[in-house]
Parts: sequence; structure tokens; C-alpha cells
Amino acid sequence: MTDGPTFATPGSAKELEEGRALTPKFDADGLVTAVVTDAASGDVLMVAHMNAQALRRTIETGEAWYYSRSRKKLWKKGETSGHVQRVKELRVDCDQDALWLKVEQVGESACHTGRRSCFYRAVPLGKAGTALEFRDADKMFDPKAVYGKS
Amino acid sequence: MTDGPTFATPGSAKELEEGRALTPKFDADGLVTAVVTDAASGDVLMVAHMNAQALRRTIETGEAWYYSRSRKKLWKKGETSGHVQRVKELRVDCDQDALWLKVEQVGESACHTGRRSCFYRAVPLGKAGTALEFRDADKMFDPKAVYGKS
Repeated sequence: MTDGPTFATPGSAKELEEGRALTPKFDADGLVTAVVTDAASGDVLMVAHMNAQALRRTIETGEAWYYSRSRKKLWKKGETSGHVQRVKELRVDCDQDALWLKVEQVGESACHTGRRSCFYRAVPLGKAGTALEFRDADKMFDPKAVYGKS
Repeated sequence: MTDGPTFATPGSAKELEEGRALTPKFDADGLVTAVVTDAASGDVLMVAHMNAQALRRTIETGEAWYYSRSRKKLWKKGETSGHVQRVKELRVDCDQDALWLKVEQVGESACHTGRRSCFYRAVPLGKAGTALEFRDADKMFDPKAVYGKS
């Protein structure tokens, strides 16, 4: 596994949309958005970001790597918790600035709060300002026990 | 429907993650990421962005509004094509910088290229640089006919 330049510079809109070359359109920070769904249930588990290195490692290893904007570093999902993500399918969107990973989530939990998915609260429609409703919010693990902090 | 200040400033990590107040963590450009899935199939249809105004309109109307980074303007999905998105459920993630919309996609096509989903190409795993594979890439409509350009 090497981490040299991997992806060619994006071409025209037509090449991006209809071509067979993966030429991700990284943003000013060098990142693309990664949407992660559970390959079995289809639920969205989390949204994260990848730089070129994270994307290359994900492709080459079949396990999900991301770039943490807060910690400013490459990270392998599950490196602390053991809850790695095995990528069953990886897709890229029309303009190649977003990726969709269908994963098998080891440990059944993708969220650092211990929930299966990061999306455990619903926003009621109709009136802005209505209280959020917790849904599918059971904790699969205790974050304090896994990460040593709440 | 008004478009004044809608959402309170995000509080502590604990308030963001465990609270019942929607206090989106907009980025430096005033945006959050919106992941859109088909409420019936669970497939990811597209990834877009919302500013506060787009989010408020989405909540109040039950139809999806976004903010276009390229056109630098608020837009209602389907305003040109008629392919609006009826929001069946709206969720927010742990740190409130991403939203998940489960929608009923009118016209069966979310992508401006005419496909059902923007994610119509798979990235083969194992070796970076392998050609993309088209999947579920049938066009539901002719973009030229709908938008007047290819």
C-alpha cells in the first residue's frame, strides 16, 4: 500500500459525470463527503469525510478510513473501538464530490455515542423549533468503557 | 413562513448530542450536509447542502429545499424539473452538522443527469485506479428535454 498521488485531476463536467475514471472533486480542504449506510438495513449510519489518502486506503483494504476534520488526521474507523466497517460496495456520485459506502458494521454501532447510527433523533415537520424526538436511540455500548470518556 | 433567525447557537457537545433542541452546527459557509434517501428503497439518492433558510423551509413545508454552492442560491428541489421531494422523515446526526432526509421522490429521479440516484457508478475495491462500473444507471428522463441543456 502506498500513499502517493492517486487520483487524476477532475476533467470536464461530462467526464466527471459519464466517465469511468475516478477523479474525485476534493474541496478546498482536500476532502469529499462520505455517506455510510448499513448494507443490511439500508439505514444511514454516519456522514464523514475522506481525503485522497483515506479514499485510497479504503479502496485497497476494503475497510473504511476517513479524515477527521476536528483532529486533523487520518483515522481508521474502529481503530479505538474495534468497530471497523467492512465495505461491501463503494459508489461515487455524479460530480464526484461524494461517496456512498455500504458497510457491514462490526459491533453494530457506528456512532461514538454508542448508538447504531448517528441519526438517532428526528426533526418534527411543520413548525421549526419543535423538540427533537429520539428514535432508534438505544445504546449498543458504553462510550465511557470504550473510549475512556463520555 | 418567515425567514428570520431560526436556530439557536449550538451549545456544548453534550447538549448537541443528547439534547432535544435543533441547533445545527453550520460550517464556515453557513451550511450543513444533507443526505437524501428514497423512503421506499432506502437507496441514497443524493447529497446536498442546506443553509438555515433551506432547513427552515424544509421543516415548514415538508418539501426539500437546499442551498446551491455553485449557484450560490436557495433552491427548491424540483423547481425546474417538477421532481420535488416530499419529506417523510427528517433526522439530525449526533453533532448536528448533517441531516438525513427520507423522501418520496416525485418523477422517480433525483439526479440532474436523469438517473434515479446520483450514485450510479461503483468504485471497484482492491486496487485504486480500476475503471468505475455503471450500476442502476438507466435514465428516467432526458436532461436536455427537462433543463434545456445536456
